[in-house]
Amino acid sequence: MESSFIGYTRGDYSSKSFQAVNPANGEKLPSHYAFASDEDVNLACKLADQASLKLAVLSGQEKAKFLRTLADGIEGIVEDLVGVMTQETGLPELRVRGETGRTCGQLRMFAQLVEDGNWVDARIDRAQPDRKPLPKPDLRSMLRPVGPVAVFCASNFPLAFSVAGGDSASAWAAGCPVIVKAHHAHPGTALLIAEKVVECMQQCNWPEGAFSLLFGEGRTIGQALVSHPVIKAVGFTGSRSGGRALFDLASKRPDPIPVFAEMSSVNPVFVLSAMKGEEMDQFAEGLAGSANLGVGQFCTNPGIVFHPAGEWGENFTEVYAEKMKVTKPCPMLHQGIKDAYETGLNGLSSCNGIDVVYRSTINENDLGSAAGPAVLRTTATSFLADKSMMEEVFGPSTLLVGYDSIEELFEVSRILEGQLTISIFGDSSVLHEQESLLSELEIKAGRLLFNQFPTGVEVCPSIVHGGPYPATTDARSTSVGTGAILRFARPVCYQGFPNDFLPDELKEGNPLGLQRCEA
Amino acid sequence: MESSFIGYTRGDYSSKSFQAVNPANGEKLPSHYAFASDEDVNLACKLADQASLKLAVLSGQEKAKFLRTLADGIEGIVEDLVGVMTQETGLPELRVRGETGRTCGQLRMFAQLVEDGNWVDARIDRAQPDRKPLPKPDLRSMLRPVGPVAVFCASNFPLAFSVAGGDSASAWAAGCPVIVKAHHAHPGTALLIAEKVVECMQQCNWPEGAFSLLFGEGRTIGQALVSHPVIKAVGFTGSRSGGRALFDLASKRPDPIPVFAEMSSVNPVFVLSAMKGEEMDQFAEGLAGSANLGVGQFCTNPGIVFHPAGEWGENFTEVYAEKMKVTKPCPMLHQGIKDAYETGLNGLSSCNGIDVVYRSTINENDLGSAAGPAVLRTTATSFLADKSMMEEVFGPSTLLVGYDSIEELFEVSRILEGQLTISIFGDSSVLHEQESLLSELEIKAGRLLFNQFPTGVEVCPSIVHGGPYPATTDARSTSVGTGAILRFARPVCYQGFPNDFLPDELKEGNPLGLQRCEA
Repeated sequence: MESSFIGYTRGDYSSKSFQAVNPANGEKLPSHYAFASDEDVNLACKLADQASLKLAVLSGQEKAKFLRTLADGIEGIVEDLVGVMTQETGLPELRVRGETGRTCGQLRMFAQLVEDGNWVDARIDRAQPDRKPLPKPDLRSMLRPVGPVAVFCASNFPLAFSVAGGDSASAWAAGCPVIVKAHHAHPGTALLIAEKVVECMQQCNWPEGAFSLLFGEGRTIGQALVSHPVIKAVGFTGSRSGGRALFDLASKRPDPIPVFAEMSSVNPVFVLSAMKGEEMDQFAEGLAGSANLGVGQFCTNPGIVFHPAGEWGENFTEVYAEKMKVTKPCPMLHQGIKDAYETGLNGLSSCNGIDVVYRSTINENDLGSAAGPAVLRTTATSFLADKSMMEEVFGPSTLLVGYDSIEELFEVSRILEGQLTISIFGDSSVLHEQESLLSELEIKAGRLLFNQFPTGVEVCPSIVHGGPYPATTDARSTSVGTGAILRFARPVCYQGFPNDFLPDELKEGNPLGLQRCEA
Repeated sequence: MESSFIGYTRGDYSSKSFQAVNPANGEKLPSHYAFASDEDVNLACKLADQASLKLAVLSGQEKAKFLRTLADGIEGIVEDLVGVMTQETGLPELRVRGETGRTCGQLRMFAQLVEDGNWVDARIDRAQPDRKPLPKPDLRSMLRPVGPVAVFCASNFPLAFSVAGGDSASAWAAGCPVIVKAHHAHPGTALLIAEKVVECMQQCNWPEGAFSLLFGEGRTIGQALVSHPVIKAVGFTGSRSGGRALFDLASKRPDPIPVFAEMSSVNPVFVLSAMKGEEMDQFAEGLAGSANLGVGQFCTNPGIVFHPAGEWGENFTEVYAEKMKVTKPCPMLHQGIKDAYETGLNGLSSCNGIDVVYRSTINENDLGSAAGPAVLRTTATSFLADKSMMEEVFGPSTLLVGYDSIEELFEVSRILEGQLTISIFGDSSVLHEQESLLSELEIKAGRLLFNQFPTGVEVCPSIVHGGPYPATTDARSTSVGTGAILRFARPVCYQGFPNDFLPDELKEGNPLGLQRCEA
């Protein structure tokens, strides 16, 4: 039996427990994980509260050292991860290795960011004692950590958006303690990483309470964490209903806290010019690859494609369906996701004006939570008449929507909900011709792509993995890239402080050599 | 009869109307202002929606031109403002002139900020087509406007946080249309500014709908605006109950939007060393000045002072009360504020362990909404036992809290709610000795001051006028200074766009000469 990590020690072993299921065959895996008790949650919060002040005074170097040590440590257990994670998620070994690389890359990116130090947005306005009519005081400000952050592991990124993933890495980099709620589908993966986190924290003399890992029933633990007075912000990647529930809870607190939930996006693709033969074939090939990547379980999976109707559209639909048929059913991450996919497809198929062009069948050899691609089609007229077609069907399905005029696309852009990404395909001349359509689309997305597919999110300073609701609960944030750290920091201004007592970032002489806004 | 400004035209004249009251004598002022109708609100939102796309493509220069034209325009009507605003608010002429200067200064500060252009946080990651295992795409991001913003005029800043105040100026600077709800206490001041805004927008060819001004009952208009699908963010300065109501409404929308409400702060002052004779006298003098400034109606008014108990405390209390007695009752901004002040004082006076040291009496010559200073005292023990003592009493009152030990201050720091400011007074040696107390206090405030009083908020890049709840509903924001623009912008990423179609801020060759984060 395994239990939660409460700081450096283990939590309650006595309560109800659960086992993970191998989605490839539907069989329970041997390890048992005890649900965190109320005492576990409270102790984790108490330790986080105490750790908060200690983390807040760590230097960028000290934070970077831990993040790099952890990256090295996780790389060192990649073989263990391959063993456990492939069983828990049905994801192939290559993906486990790739996601390990991404996770460690993120940790090192944040290490570099805080070592560099410029992210704190240091601003200095020096005193002008002789200013008339009133003297100007000395004012200096910089970003400081918000306090303990609750992080919810994502089902679809067992490493890169889970225990030591982007949310945790950016919170630690900001100087915030992190309490992680493990995902029920991959507790063993979570535990492997958690052991490494604790080991590296001890090695780097980080305070106990800078990390805890809680196993348990999502709703109960989630509510306890998000309602706890100690928690000051929440990072979440998951379903729209789950994210909204946390947001609602956080908003109703006596002291509301921000919830950064990355939830739901159909990542519309707008085909603006009717591509010719080979070009169309390549587009269909690329789209099918993007739609099937990871059994369609990426947040940026392209779910709806608006394309010219008529003969070209008929032809394209046929070509695309053929490309999609090539991919055979594979296990989705867990049975819940697979069930939601099938339910979503059934719902979409029953909408007025929808035709099912192709839907893969699961045969008796497809054990566990296997699911395969689907292609549905409709017209822009039908789409505009039924907003339920806009709902995300999480998995490898594509809804092809034929449009007759640019006016219809304008109407679509107006009813479209917020998205993580919107991709535009066409000759670059269409950018000229459809400038106002692009302006409309920009309002709805965090990332706009031209002649590229939205999956394969690059981790770098300029990425935006965010967008208006329901893509996220905070359109001003990104959960990927260096900008993710800004979610867990707030500006603090120091007025009239003697130089010795200012943070190094704000001292005269600029001892850290930062880029500062100075006057 | 006056009506709302809906874009460039006037709204409904037919509905219920109201008049402002001169708080100096309690008499109604002659002008009548018609409540905005539902149609007014809807049309203002529709126009804002349309203007949104046009504002989003304005250059920094075009935005700066309008902001500067407006600043000049408002300076040109300062004599009219003196006439109307002194009558509506009871504020002295000098304050009207001063606040006009601050308002125009803010508009020019944002003009310079957007002309300079660096605020957009331009980030560029260039393509690496040969990168292995996958090519790196070209990614570029910058801050873009969030869309139409609802702004609520503040009762205590009829110019600097009203129609063309900090919220509107920062929203326009970000490229967002603004719909302003006028404050019932100073509609004539609002109208004078609104006429100037409309005139300057037409002069600068800004689209109709970039501004509307609505008169009406706060709750009704407020709810209609904050619930309207077109509105994407809210700026508010006012009471805790008002701000929280708007926040709750915005959080319950199908698509929640951010509310930046600056609401409530007692701006605690911590006296850490027992100052000697003259020094103590100067401190008491300065504190009384800060507490009485503007009849105590500043958000940063110091309401609670923690000081050493014992003989020093007795002596200080006596000296302070004498200083406070010097200030005679003056009219508060409106009867509602005055009533709330008296009710707040009565409530505080009735708490267990509170003594009223001094409370000015209103005599028959004090017409209108006159109110005067009050000094109350208690012990840290009593304060810790009754959290209701922490509630803001908006007006010129001070609660003096004598403490016996630093341990008591630690306990206070732990129960303290979020604050706009916390001021620390003492020798600089106390900063050394009380480092951990300072760390605790930092968690609770947007601005920390050393040996300075919190009123007189400097408008500059490094100011933070914000803080944890209930100081504001978003601790990551400031409503004063250049950072205020960040409330109304969100990052957008462009992937794979041809150079010609990128915003100038992100183009190759850096045509705007910005400081960019480039790789």
